[in-house]
Amino acid sequence: MEKNKVIRVIQYGMGSIGSKIVRELLKRSSFKLVGAIDIAPEIVGRDVSEVAGLSQPFNLPVESDPAKVLTSARADVVVHTTGSHLNRIFSQLEEVVRSGLNVVSTSEELVYPFQRHPELSAQLNQLAVDKGVTVLGTGINPGFVMDTMALVLSSVCVEVKRVKVERVIDAATRRFPFQKKIGAGLSPEEFRSKVAQGRIGHVGLAESLYLIAHGLGWTIEEIKEEITPILAETNLRTEYIEVSSGIVAGMEQLAQGLSGGREVLTLHFRAFIGAPKPHDAIEIEGNPPLKVTIDGGVAGDVATVAMVVNAIPRVLAAEPGLKTMADLPLPHAALG
Amino acid sequence: MEKNKVIRVIQYGMGSIGSKIVRELLKRSSFKLVGAIDIAPEIVGRDVSEVAGLSQPFNLPVESDPAKVLTSARADVVVHTTGSHLNRIFSQLEEVVRSGLNVVSTSEELVYPFQRHPELSAQLNQLAVDKGVTVLGTGINPGFVMDTMALVLSSVCVEVKRVKVERVIDAATRRFPFQKKIGAGLSPEEFRSKVAQGRIGHVGLAESLYLIAHGLGWTIEEIKEEITPILAETNLRTEYIEVSSGIVAGMEQLAQGLSGGREVLTLHFRAFIGAPKPHDAIEIEGNPPLKVTIDGGVAGDVATVAMVVNAIPRVLAAEPGLKTMADLPLPHAALG
Repeated sequence: MEKNKVIRVIQYGMGSIGSKIVRELLKRSSFKLVGAIDIAPEIVGRDVSEVAGLSQPFNLPVESDPAKVLTSARADVVVHTTGSHLNRIFSQLEEVVRSGLNVVSTSEELVYPFQRHPELSAQLNQLAVDKGVTVLGTGINPGFVMDTMALVLSSVCVEVKRVKVERVIDAATRRFPFQKKIGAGLSPEEFRSKVAQGRIGHVGLAESLYLIAHGLGWTIEEIKEEITPILAETNLRTEYIEVSSGIVAGMEQLAQGLSGGREVLTLHFRAFIGAPKPHDAIEIEGNPPLKVTIDGGVAGDVATVAMVVNAIPRVLAAEPGLKTMADLPLPHAALG
Repeated sequence: MEKNKVIRVIQYGMGSIGSKIVRELLKRSSFKLVGAIDIAPEIVGRDVSEVAGLSQPFNLPVESDPAKVLTSARADVVVHTTGSHLNRIFSQLEEVVRSGLNVVSTSEELVYPFQRHPELSAQLNQLAVDKGVTVLGTGINPGFVMDTMALVLSSVCVEVKRVKVERVIDAATRRFPFQKKIGAGLSPEEFRSKVAQGRIGHVGLAESLYLIAHGLGWTIEEIKEEITPILAETNLRTEYIEVSSGIVAGMEQLAQGLSGGREVLTLHFRAFIGAPKPHDAIEIEGNPPLKVTIDGGVAGDVATVAMVVNAIPRVLAAEPGLKTMADLPLPHAALG
């Protein structure tokens, strides 16, 4: 890629994260927003800057027809933020890659898709190679705190016996959809029934686990995953919701990866309203042992926006194919 | 590079770190030690494993003639650990690169050589490109805690106003040469005179600073660097040395990088005997702000060995040229 060339970006998905990415892209001189795609009838045809909550017009309408935007916008890359699950977004990604465009996606499953979706991954990788473009799934979690950071820290170790990552979020500081996603406000019975339906829980813990294993060259024979409600001990209230004592305030989710019959990877995610001392902590049992703490934890949406936007130049420079954070050059802020 | 091919390594420099790297390489099935170079008369001709402190013979003599080893060992990479300063090691690196071999070096100045030695860097880069090999300077400090880690953390930021890194080492836990390097045991007058002669101080703080600036795309207009002694407040004793109250227990070194008249980079290194709560801390003033602490700090020699050995596969896979940690793929442990 030519240096200092302005990067032409299409935003695919104008939800909350997509809108925030648009606002960030419009601030930067190194990017030019050249297209926006969403199917929601209430925003199709409206100016992307208005949809993104900006007052200054940008005169670029949100389009519902991907083909129209993908073929005419002469873009370099598509930022894709429409969903978590690869089987539901596969046809979107396929169309983008067929159009010869690079992809940075916030799809949680795309952070490490090879385990859960080996066939779709192989297909997408082959298509990307054929078309000479790079596809990356990234974000904060999965994508950074519970996987990439752990891998980076392992670089100072001659031996790694076990990796433990803990993420504690005070859900009171997060958006309403997040509070719903962790079951806040439900009765314990409702919580269990929604877990059984797969409607509650953090998507991406297994992906983080497999990304670490991939980087370290470990074969994971078995993965155990468990979701448990955390009940309010007193009456709680956020900007969006009230939770009485005994009602679900959030959840904890534990993923354990076994190799050689031994638990080598432990990812522990806890998010509930009023969680004390939110933080991220990465611990490596090895030589040397390591314990790293991120005070307060890596904050939600703005960090996700940063990770996505900062990834774009590296994705454009990377070799073609479906890549992971472990394959790309060192992540860092790409300012300007 | 072919996957799973055993990587053939020459160790250039059989001092303390070189010997530890040899011990690590001999443990791993993915590497084969095929040559060892050092000029110290007392070890030339002796078996590399004996020099490295191992009891089992390896039947590979330490050679004093680099040309002989470089041309006959059919190596993939040279691990180079003979010195800190690029002007003193340049001819060694030049000879290695001319032989068509990749280099991973612990030279502190090589972690970011472009600022201090623009001509030597350009020359080495061109030669590496011509020969199709990659040259990397790496280590823990410089190379990781005060630069690479800060860059990785910046990837979650949409804005970075200032980066501060603090490293506090209890020198009592380190080797004698390290204790000497920080002036332990000197009178304050001796300390100042040795600083003036450039014989005391941590090499690499400016390199860390410029590596961060390079990654973030910042232009540093001015760098201020200052070394001050830290005096013992009580009588101190280590395995190697006694320090009376009022005598130098170690030092602190501060590097400040200015851009647009503002201090944007602050690297603060403190190492003294008896330093309480050793740690590394990285703080980013930006959006979001970040504060990360490595409890106890990243331990010395074993971590340096890890960083060097773990870098080898990435250096072999990288594009030719003189590269930095910011250019290479994500660092992580390469086990096995």
